[in-house]
Amino acid sequence: MSASPLNTSAASVSVLLQELFPLCRSLTGPGNRETLARLQRLIPLTVHEYPSGTQVYDWVIPKEWKPKAGSVKGPDGRVLIDFAENNLHLVGYSAPVAGQFSLEELRPHLHWLDNAPEAIPYRTSYYKEDWGFCLSRKQFEERFAPYGPEARFTVTIDTALEAGSLSVGELLIPGETSQEVLLSTYFCHPSLANDNLSGVVLTAFLAKELLARKNKYSYRIVFVPETIGAVAYCAHNEAAMQALDCGFVITCVAGRGPWGFKGSIHGEHRINRVVETVLREFEQPVLRYPFDPHGSDERQYSSPGFRINTASITKDKYYEYPEYHTSLDTLDFISPEHLCTTLRMHLRALELLEDDVFYENVNPQCETMLSPRGLYPSAGGGMMPGTNTGAQLDSILWLLMLCDGATALPEIAKQANLSLQELRDMAAFLEGKGLLRKCAFPHVKKNNALAAGRYEHK
Amino acid sequence: MSASPLNTSAASVSVLLQELFPLCRSLTGPGNRETLARLQRLIPLTVHEYPSGTQVYDWVIPKEWKPKAGSVKGPDGRVLIDFAENNLHLVGYSAPVAGQFSLEELRPHLHWLDNAPEAIPYRTSYYKEDWGFCLSRKQFEERFAPYGPEARFTVTIDTALEAGSLSVGELLIPGETSQEVLLSTYFCHPSLANDNLSGVVLTAFLAKELLARKNKYSYRIVFVPETIGAVAYCAHNEAAMQALDCGFVITCVAGRGPWGFKGSIHGEHRINRVVETVLREFEQPVLRYPFDPHGSDERQYSSPGFRINTASITKDKYYEYPEYHTSLDTLDFISPEHLCTTLRMHLRALELLEDDVFYENVNPQCETMLSPRGLYPSAGGGMMPGTNTGAQLDSILWLLMLCDGATALPEIAKQANLSLQELRDMAAFLEGKGLLRKCAFPHVKKNNALAAGRYEHK
Amino acid sequence: MSASPLNTSAASVSVLLQELFPLCRSLTGPGNRETLARLQRLIPLTVHEYPSGTQVYDWVIPKEWKPKAGSVKGPDGRVLIDFAENNLHLVGYSAPVAGQFSLEELRPHLHWLDNAPEAIPYRTSYYKEDWGFCLSRKQFEERFAPYGPEARFTVTIDTALEAGSLSVGELLIPGETSQEVLLSTYFCHPSLANDNLSGVVLTAFLAKELLARKNKYSYRIVFVPETIGAVAYCAHNEAAMQALDCGFVITCVAGRGPWGFKGSIHGEHRINRVVETVLREFEQPVLRYPFDPHGSDERQYSSPGFRINTASITKDKYYEYPEYHTSLDTLDFISPEHLCTTLRMHLRALELLEDDVFYENVNPQCETMLSPRGLYPSAGGGMMPGTNTGAQLDSILWLLMLCDGATALPEIAKQANLSLQELRDMAAFLEGKGLLRKCAFPHVKKNNALAAGRYEHK
Repeated sequence: MSASPLNTSAASVSVLLQELFPLCRSLTGPGNRETLARLQRLIPLTVHEYPSGTQVYDWVIPKEWKPKAGSVKGPDGRVLIDFAENNLHLVGYSAPVAGQFSLEELRPHLHWLDNAPEAIPYRTSYYKEDWGFCLSRKQFEERFAPYGPEARFTVTIDTALEAGSLSVGELLIPGETSQEVLLSTYFCHPSLANDNLSGVVLTAFLAKELLARKNKYSYRIVFVPETIGAVAYCAHNEAAMQALDCGFVITCVAGRGPWGFKGSIHGEHRINRVVETVLREFEQPVLRYPFDPHGSDERQYSSPGFRINTASITKDKYYEYPEYHTSLDTLDFISPEHLCTTLRMHLRALELLEDDVFYENVNPQCETMLSPRGLYPSAGGGMMPGTNTGAQLDSILWLLMLCDGATALPEIAKQANLSLQELRDMAAFLEGKGLLRKCAFPHVKKNNALAAGRYEHK
Repeated sequence: MSASPLNTSAASVSVLLQELFPLCRSLTGPGNRETLARLQRLIPLTVHEYPSGTQVYDWVIPKEWKPKAGSVKGPDGRVLIDFAENNLHLVGYSAPVAGQFSLEELRPHLHWLDNAPEAIPYRTSYYKEDWGFCLSRKQFEERFAPYGPEARFTVTIDTALEAGSLSVGELLIPGETSQEVLLSTYFCHPSLANDNLSGVVLTAFLAKELLARKNKYSYRIVFVPETIGAVAYCAHNEAAMQALDCGFVITCVAGRGPWGFKGSIHGEHRINRVVETVLREFEQPVLRYPFDPHGSDERQYSSPGFRINTASITKDKYYEYPEYHTSLDTLDFISPEHLCTTLRMHLRALELLEDDVFYENVNPQCETMLSPRGLYPSAGGGMMPGTNTGAQLDSILWLLMLCDGATALPEIAKQANLSLQELRDMAAFLEGKGLLRKCAFPHVKKNNALAAGRYEHK
Repeated sequence: MSASPLNTSAASVSVLLQELFPLCRSLTGPGNRETLARLQRLIPLTVHEYPSGTQVYDWVIPKEWKPKAGSVKGPDGRVLIDFAENNLHLVGYSAPVAGQFSLEELRPHLHWLDNAPEAIPYRTSYYKEDWGFCLSRKQFEERFAPYGPEARFTVTIDTALEAGSLSVGELLIPGETSQEVLLSTYFCHPSLANDNLSGVVLTAFLAKELLARKNKYSYRIVFVPETIGAVAYCAHNEAAMQALDCGFVITCVAGRGPWGFKGSIHGEHRINRVVETVLREFEQPVLRYPFDPHGSDERQYSSPGFRINTASITKDKYYEYPEYHTSLDTLDFISPEHLCTTLRMHLRALELLEDDVFYENVNPQCETMLSPRGLYPSAGGGMMPGTNTGAQLDSILWLLMLCDGATALPEIAKQANLSLQELRDMAAFLEGKGLLRKCAFPHVKKNNALAAGRYEHK
């Protein structure tokens, strides 16, 4: 991958955000397929359908949910809550209902937030068949209070919960090497902008950018419903996922708060260094959330059987902003410009990851002959214009001495007490001269006792 | 092994101490067999006899020693020293003698301690044929001083030194797993209470306690004459001993001084942490003697060819109390109550060792589904009564993420910044739910170059 | 190798220095063969000839250079520069020339040092065919200034540059073990005393000393033209060179400045400790130059394909003294006495290297029986005269416990908190008793990813 200007405009981001925002996404269902179909107009996603009832590790693919309508009407026929008005009003995976209920009977099926009177909360009941409505506290107070205790409310939930399938979008972008980097986002949330329509849209445009570039690594880009989708994808691609070393879980990338990142499971993995470098380059404080097993799909990818080091670059990380998982997380909360900036951060991180090469000396035995290649300083000029030839020679000699295919440039810079940038430039130059050869990837040993067979069962 | 009340009473300890104290034990001989026979009434010891002359590594099993009588009489027929009075009076392995000696001739065969006038020292001459008597300085002064320089003393030592065998007691208590823990004590000392009748009696009652419990590990319990007995036992059980990872050498457990422990050869081995925890639980200062190659049978068990990490929990450690190896180390010096406390410490240490499990996630790929198992917090109550569900979820998620069968709970507690006790409880709970599986033992690599084949001979 | 008095006298060193100083050495040619022939009168060197045009790794053996004469004459016939006067006057590898030149034409072929008016610099043009003369600034000013701008100077360079061969001297001294230590020096510099006639002469006498001794290690001693000679030697002896663990590059050993040493590529390798010990023993400050990829033939030997840890003990290290690479680096600058001292330092370093043994316990299982070998302290005397028996027993027990063939004595001394010297003495004593066995060499894993196959190419 070579650094090049962003092809993505804030305007095109804005269009996609607005198109996708109203769709009612969930773990499964027509809103998900519409979302993927819309993305396919941007990037050549392959859509995989995993049938309901399929066992995926400890999980089972649930029935498909098709919400058509949902409302609560007062005894006077007034519509008090309507799914058509905001798809957050209907609890995700609500079963079909048609009947009349007293307020006392209805009450356990109504959800609001006591401390956020304007916000409709986001609720689901994926694995326990139930039904319900979400509304703001204010809506409840204004719309339900006028009725007396004997009032009967008409509930209509027109949904289907039936055998179907869970949809996953996948795009494999082959690079110069077969080593893959994972880019994963989740698209199961309905009309919530930062969490995680922003991540979906960023990932789509990131994929489009990568498609337009020549990449060193291959990229495995997946759009999954959170958790069950990631689990299902892992189960259907186990060997490929176990071969992954690192990547990103893309989530919450365009809010009003600060940029930050969640570190990967092994805090010393180079992906963390790469992200810290990006934040510094973008002149942002390095706000690092340490890895923990709460969170998003890194819970699947970092599990003992995979141990993929995934980080997340966020702008208003989930859990950290009050609008999180409510109807206040609207398109107004985020901005296409922020999204484009975080997109550039992701691209830059991938650039750095790809730049973070592991060279080996092509002629490992003894010194390479520098003078016939014009690499030995002579009076009056060095081998690269405008620089000090003595410092260049230092870089050349240290690189040829230490590049063994397993020592990264930052480590060489430290031992040689030289600038990383100069080493990087010189290494690229020496590669061009045929004196160093990049290794596609170092042989990283995963810190994974299960994979490594460190013990036997008794 | 499950924690349960001590079945051992101080009274029964006291009875056994009094029965065994008078017996004249040595490396071999009838006193040893009587001791083992008496222990067999308590626990089902197997007695192995290794014949005199058997080569065991660098050592040879010595002749069997059978002391019957030993005395020194004055020219007036007065009995000045009598083995029947205290078996410390006769130097261990004294050869038979019958004759008359001047005091000058006798002097090299008399041993006392200049700085402890009341104490009869404990002396042996196992590997150099010799004879002698031990007495207190006061006894010497009172009994021998009255005679003039021309006096002749009659020495009678009626012992046999002849082909026989060395007796070792062994009890294998099978546990849930075939992995063994070593419990070794030495019983070659005659009437010395703390060193080491206390260890012999503790080990016997410890064995009895373990027999009454359900244990996770298997226990290899051995009663050996110190050094030669341990060597002989290793030589006859080489493969089993090399398979051992850790254990205890049980010695000096009931004196008047402080509790303490001698660390194992690799100071970071978990057995040392376990013992420190026990001392803290018993509200004792953590008095730690670092490993050194002096001491007891850890010298054999920790040698390069075995490298078993053995610790010793002591009360008045050998070398550290003035009565050590003298007739002042009597039953009055120790107490059955102290012995019972140190017995409880050993039991507790074994409990902790057994508790120190290494879990693996049964479903290592991706997350385990928590909600159908009632493990996901819901409004109004958690999955375990009386506790905070958020903290519980933390423990669950961290455990499922990090349990790879090779990382111990204390390390997980550190990385997760959670309480070890909570993790322990939750891990047991998750094991009950079938989500974690205990590994019988981690695969510990012994720090043993010889065993590991780190080099070849040239 | 056992320590013994130096057979080398300053007088014999002085004779050899004076014989070799005037010879015109270079990468190749008759001066090199004369030098090796002269050394063969001292030590049984084998001379290898590598033909011009031979590819050796990235290099090609150059043509052979045979300088016969070289001069510049003024228009008045006066000889202004004459190779016969000082062989530094002629740039090494100058091509033949016969012609007349104006001063302007001649100027690029004249080399002096602006800031050292009395010094003739040392210059070569091995790999770019050229010609030239070196002279002091003062010589230039005095000899060329008198002529006017129209003067024509007659240049005569009578040299041959033709197919021949590069000569290398090699001496293999077998030791008790087949493990080799490298001793390498370079002899391509013409009349320069410290750099590196001193190293050549020291290496020759060091070889002679080693020939007279019984050595534990085998020594691979090589006299090579710097860089190309070392490269050619490695290429012709690849397997043997890859089997080497450590050694010395011998250079600049007899100047007026301080002793010091350049560390090896892995700063923790024991060769560095050994050299620091020698400097302390010789009551010199420990002046350590860290490894860097500039320097001498360690550039070849430490390259990724070999990773031999070579150090250099220097007296006035190259780069560090003003006379370096000029005609001021004469026999007056160095002294045979200094050379003999540095020779003793090298011998002492080799002694320490050979002393730095790795013992293994001959009886790794259980304790060795000490008393029948007279190793257990008894009243009135220890096993070694004049020493404290308790301390001796400590040393014995620690050594038998920790000697596993992979732990060096300094590490044992540290863990046991005992004096290294006492441990060393005791280990030798125990070896004599047949209780410890020296391992010829520890199995050192080279820190060399290429050699270790840590990664595969993609």
